[in-house]
Amino acid sequence: MEITTASEQKSLLASLTPGKRTRLRRLLFEFGPGDGTLLLLPIDQGIEHGPRDFFPNPASKDPDYQFRLAAEAGYSAIACQIGLASKYFPDYAGQVPLLLKVNGKTDLPPSDEAFSSTNASVEDAVRLGADAVGYTLYVGSPRQDQDLRQLQTVREECDRYGMPLVIWAYPRGSAVSAKGGQNSFYAIDYAARLAMEMGADVVKLNMPKPDPAKDKDAPAPYDELEVSQEEAVRHVVESAGRSLVVLSGGSRIDDDQLLGQTRHIMEAGGSGVIYGRNVWQREWNEALEIIAQIKEIMLSSVSRIP
Amino acid sequence: MEITTASEQKSLLASLTPGKRTRLRRLLFEFGPGDGTLLLLPIDQGIEHGPRDFFPNPASKDPDYQFRLAAEAGYSAIACQIGLASKYFPDYAGQVPLLLKVNGKTDLPPSDEAFSSTNASVEDAVRLGADAVGYTLYVGSPRQDQDLRQLQTVREECDRYGMPLVIWAYPRGSAVSAKGGQNSFYAIDYAARLAMEMGADVVKLNMPKPDPAKDKDAPAPYDELEVSQEEAVRHVVESAGRSLVVLSGGSRIDDDQLLGQTRHIMEAGGSGVIYGRNVWQREWNEALEIIAQIKEIMLSSVSRIP
Amino acid sequence: MEITTASEQKSLLASLTPGKRTRLRRLLFEFGPGDGTLLLLPIDQGIEHGPRDFFPNPASKDPDYQFRLAAEAGYSAIACQIGLASKYFPDYAGQVPLLLKVNGKTDLPPSDEAFSSTNASVEDAVRLGADAVGYTLYVGSPRQDQDLRQLQTVREECDRYGMPLVIWAYPRGSAVSAKGGQNSFYAIDYAARLAMEMGADVVKLNMPKPDPAKDKDAPAPYDELEVSQEEAVRHVVESAGRSLVVLSGGSRIDDDQLLGQTRHIMEAGGSGVIYGRNVWQREWNEALEIIAQIKEIMLSSVSRIP
Amino acid sequence: MEITTASEQKSLLASLTPGKRTRLRRLLFEFGPGDGTLLLLPIDQGIEHGPRDFFPNPASKDPDYQFRLAAEAGYSAIACQIGLASKYFPDYAGQVPLLLKVNGKTDLPPSDEAFSSTNASVEDAVRLGADAVGYTLYVGSPRQDQDLRQLQTVREECDRYGMPLVIWAYPRGSAVSAKGGQNSFYAIDYAARLAMEMGADVVKLNMPKPDPAKDKDAPAPYDELEVSQEEAVRHVVESAGRSLVVLSGGSRIDDDQLLGQTRHIMEAGGSGVIYGRNVWQREWNEALEIIAQIKEIMLSSVSRIP
Amino acid sequence: MEITTASEQKSLLASLTPGKRTRLRRLLFEFGPGDGTLLLLPIDQGIEHGPRDFFPNPASKDPDYQFRLAAEAGYSAIACQIGLASKYFPDYAGQVPLLLKVNGKTDLPPSDEAFSSTNASVEDAVRLGADAVGYTLYVGSPRQDQDLRQLQTVREECDRYGMPLVIWAYPRGSAVSAKGGQNSFYAIDYAARLAMEMGADVVKLNMPKPDPAKDKDAPAPYDELEVSQEEAVRHVVESAGRSLVVLSGGSRIDDDQLLGQTRHIMEAGGSGVIYGRNVWQREWNEALEIIAQIKEIMLSSVSRIP
Repeated sequence: MEITTASEQKSLLASLTPGKRTRLRRLLFEFGPGDGTLLLLPIDQGIEHGPRDFFPNPASKDPDYQFRLAAEAGYSAIACQIGLASKYFPDYAGQVPLLLKVNGKTDLPPSDEAFSSTNASVEDAVRLGADAVGYTLYVGSPRQDQDLRQLQTVREECDRYGMPLVIWAYPRGSAVSAKGGQNSFYAIDYAARLAMEMGADVVKLNMPKPDPAKDKDAPAPYDELEVSQEEAVRHVVESAGRSLVVLSGGSRIDDDQLLGQTRHIMEAGGSGVIYGRNVWQREWNEALEIIAQIKEIMLSSVSRIP
Repeated sequence: MEITTASEQKSLLASLTPGKRTRLRRLLFEFGPGDGTLLLLPIDQGIEHGPRDFFPNPASKDPDYQFRLAAEAGYSAIACQIGLASKYFPDYAGQVPLLLKVNGKTDLPPSDEAFSSTNASVEDAVRLGADAVGYTLYVGSPRQDQDLRQLQTVREECDRYGMPLVIWAYPRGSAVSAKGGQNSFYAIDYAARLAMEMGADVVKLNMPKPDPAKDKDAPAPYDELEVSQEEAVRHVVESAGRSLVVLSGGSRIDDDQLLGQTRHIMEAGGSGVIYGRNVWQREWNEALEIIAQIKEIMLSSVSRIP
Repeated sequence: MEITTASEQKSLLASLTPGKRTRLRRLLFEFGPGDGTLLLLPIDQGIEHGPRDFFPNPASKDPDYQFRLAAEAGYSAIACQIGLASKYFPDYAGQVPLLLKVNGKTDLPPSDEAFSSTNASVEDAVRLGADAVGYTLYVGSPRQDQDLRQLQTVREECDRYGMPLVIWAYPRGSAVSAKGGQNSFYAIDYAARLAMEMGADVVKLNMPKPDPAKDKDAPAPYDELEVSQEEAVRHVVESAGRSLVVLSGGSRIDDDQLLGQTRHIMEAGGSGVIYGRNVWQREWNEALEIIAQIKEIMLSSVSRIP
Repeated sequence: MEITTASEQKSLLASLTPGKRTRLRRLLFEFGPGDGTLLLLPIDQGIEHGPRDFFPNPASKDPDYQFRLAAEAGYSAIACQIGLASKYFPDYAGQVPLLLKVNGKTDLPPSDEAFSSTNASVEDAVRLGADAVGYTLYVGSPRQDQDLRQLQTVREECDRYGMPLVIWAYPRGSAVSAKGGQNSFYAIDYAARLAMEMGADVVKLNMPKPDPAKDKDAPAPYDELEVSQEEAVRHVVESAGRSLVVLSGGSRIDDDQLLGQTRHIMEAGGSGVIYGRNVWQREWNEALEIIAQIKEIMLSSVSRIP
Repeated sequence: MEITTASEQKSLLASLTPGKRTRLRRLLFEFGPGDGTLLLLPIDQGIEHGPRDFFPNPASKDPDYQFRLAAEAGYSAIACQIGLASKYFPDYAGQVPLLLKVNGKTDLPPSDEAFSSTNASVEDAVRLGADAVGYTLYVGSPRQDQDLRQLQTVREECDRYGMPLVIWAYPRGSAVSAKGGQNSFYAIDYAARLAMEMGADVVKLNMPKPDPAKDKDAPAPYDELEVSQEEAVRHVVESAGRSLVVLSGGSRIDDDQLLGQTRHIMEAGGSGVIYGRNVWQREWNEALEIIAQIKEIMLSSVSRIP
């Protein structure tokens, strides 16, 4: 017997309940680039980092700016916390899907025991007409047990209401640092698998950054693997199984790098990207332009249609 | 595209549910100075500091004194805890709106792990005929996750009952101290944004106190910004987006300073002030007089009508 | 404007709901000395200190002894935990009101992080026909937030069922010790106010013990106040506002001191006393005798009828 | 006035609700020795100590052995955890009453912060046809507050369903050790009283072991009392008031000592004994024999019929 | 009296409720080897160890591979977490029973305070059509009390829905290490008993590894017992009483050892084995082959039919 490759597998949406399928298809096919891809706009930096991220483009401080951008540029969805969803999303209802992030934290206290408590519920998401819910899971944190328990409640509510669940899976904590760090292939690969096993419909990951100097501290066989970033992404997508994978851009990077990375992600079986600062830390027209390029690359290089 | 300035934005009340709008409009237009402003009387010092604050004006120790003051001088609302609301508010029902503070703490134990547990519920507020609920959030405290989770419950109840939510957003803890302190522009700006993203309808803040000597420890770009207090307030109001902002007076200050500060707050887009000790730590007639001056300045300098 | 003194204020029962008023009036007017006073018999020493308190009068070890004493001598109520209330109160139902203490602890573990968990509910009190509920709050303890949150539930249930709430407000913890100690005027004054603000209908306090040597560590202006114990009690009663105040005797003291103290308490606006060991650590007849004297003094010196 | 001695008091069952009375009478009068006594068989050593206790008599490892023993020898009840109750009790339903122990722990982790979490509910007991519920309370443990709170829930459910509550009251923790140890008269006496005040219908205690060398560290007057073990038991029974008292045998002791102790317990007002290892760590016929002797002594020396 | 040996006892299923019996019989008689045996396929390594276990056979990384294997090779059930159960089990519904594991953790944080929080509920299992629920209990961990409390909820739900409960009973923590280690006969024996007393229908254990050098630190009589591994397994099966016992293979071992061990387990009264890595860390056809051999041995050496 030979197993099929990821792109040959049966429809990834086949096991979803009607509610989840209806909502997730909106993101994959009705909004954004389409063809089963996901282009997500995150606007949770105001809580995760504070307003400092908005200084490069002061207009971006007004949440309405991002909602308008998401709607006009044609994102698959905008991801934000309850406050923005309540006060800014109503103006754009029906123009761009809402992905309600239900937990979060500031970066003020140290993150060695990272844990993001919920500040909203899946019921809030239903009430607001959201099409997906987002949850940040800190893989490997000393408070991981509390995190998994909290996630259970969110996941069960998602199952009850037919709400797609997007898990931001972030390795964190001293144990992770001691085994190669939070961006190692080992850590990202583990995070991808854990998120899938916990019931994610979509997994959001940071780009794995293979680094032999650090990877030697990871458990076998990761300590001796020599993989390119592209290969690492392919592995990670496989580890996530039937959960779709989106990768993030993080802080702002060079345009060529951004576009090249986008192509690699899509070719490796990724379902899309989540680009925030790389987009709205530039002027409106420049933002529209880069988004257009990103969408074009996504559609031309998508290799796994769910 | 150009974003509009705060004062040109669409009505800040447009996204509120009918219950919230009905109640908040009472504070903004029917009571207090009016014209969409907020003049709040806080009487929670008895729990937050103990009775010591009442010695400068012994009459102020009787809670009835403050309720009478709030009603006769025409405050937008009086903010207090459940005990005062139960035993003193009934005599003034309909004469001044009630803002029920639902959490609090004494200043006896050290505040390095500050957390204010709830002592009342939104349902209490509904039962008592309150027009708003107040919650203290310690931004940056090591127990921030517990705080945000507790706030979720209060916020959800507010949404359920159509009760406006006022968040007292106070930076606290060693991480905050290490980055410029609890009154730095950075910390206050972060607190404003967090409160808005957590669903505040009104954010209560302390005055930011720019101080180059301390601000150099804040993250970029705050470490190199050179802003006046007035500019800082303007930024903070913008960070709070569609949440209204009120600023506090703190311990008693000079009258000129108090009035000047009031004007700056209103001109910077603030929706009002919350003055307690600066008012009731003086004789009755003097209190009425200063309140009249404050109201006059508020109305003449208000720049953003919600 | 001049505020009225405590004794001239409006009826302290005016703001109580019908259920609370009905029950509390039983204690104030139908049982005990009457005329709006409270003479309470506490029998919770068996849990708070263990059986050692019963050795001076072995008969007092039998809970039935205290119930009979409370009924025959004419107390306003007997205060005890769920076990005594379940097994001994039924024989005296209708003969003396029950004040069910719903939390408690032993003195075995150290009390630097004092916290009394509940062991009974307000619903238990309703079921047993109690006329009031008692709760011990450790003001200033490092676990104060947990205490206030627990009290919220008890207070809400009291509001729901119309059950009067008596708060035992005890300053505790190293922060309290560092500011003058648990019996300082500062600490007792703070405790009185906090209890009132948390919704107490009656506040139970220990006698403040002004002591210049210790009081200098209290915050201003307490560090420089020079008040007699009687003045301190008067202040404390004022800090408790519309909550009635009862003061306790503590361990056994001299009869003259006991009676003198009783007079001072009543003259200072206190609503009564809670005397346990000072009564039942003597023979039956002697107990009846001293109770008669206490009642006489209470009625002759009461200065504030609720 | 003279109080009556324990044996002259009114019926100890008089204050029980019908459900509690019905069930407890089964143990006291229908099963076991009768005449208001309790002979309990505990089989929770498998969880509290592990299987090591079964090696002296390998047959005792099979729980069916103990159930058969309890039924054939005529115990008042068998006390065990949920697993045994579910899988072994059904075969003996109606032949011996079930006392469901609802909390427990292993002796693997150290017990300086002893706390037994529940593993079953009173509802489980009702469903299984149990006639009583057992709860272990660690008196004086640093986690005592958590214990008392947990007990509240169990006690309330017992009240709701009319289920008799048996409290295993065990002094534990460094504070107890520092005051004479967990078997001191002081500690056992305190435990008896606390259990009664918390609502126990029956209190299970270990034998107090007066020891002047250790007792000098107990609080007055225990530090100077000189009591025999028999006197100590009498005191303890009095401290438990209207709660019945059963005493345990602990690890295996000499037969004469066992029988003598049984007599002392009954003469001192105890309601019975709880003997496990002293019975089933011997052969079947020897076990039946010693049980017959114990029952005979119990009936001949019982001094307090409830 | 002589007790019967394990294999002569009454039907082990006799005390199960109809729902539990119906479901467990599917695993014991309708699927897998049959004749009352259990051959379980665990696929929770992706969360417990991360994807590293899949490298020896890359095809095994796709969860569909294991489901197909379990169905085609004829396992009694496949054990996995909620994510796999939701996305992969539907394709195999009716072809292989599902055992839903409801708690789990990663091996990233250190395990000295091991505790696996739940990430799914028994209701999830019912909804998904599972025939059993799995729970990992860390026997002896400092957080054991939290674990037992959490297990209570799972066990109660299993009782409510008639869902068989399989407990993975793993000794853990420094106290266990100090007494011979987590694989000692003492520790495994204790774990077997505890799981049974907590209500397990099936207990999953690791193979005990008698080792005189370590066992001397165990409590008497384990410190001086000299038992073979086979004798140890027999003891352990007896300690589990009427709970069925399955033993695991752990990391991959030699085929002869695997098959020999299987025979010993069945002869000692075990009900089956749970083999994951030993099976799917080899090629598909080799896997089918070894499974066939395992099943043959199981059926030929089964000694206790439930």
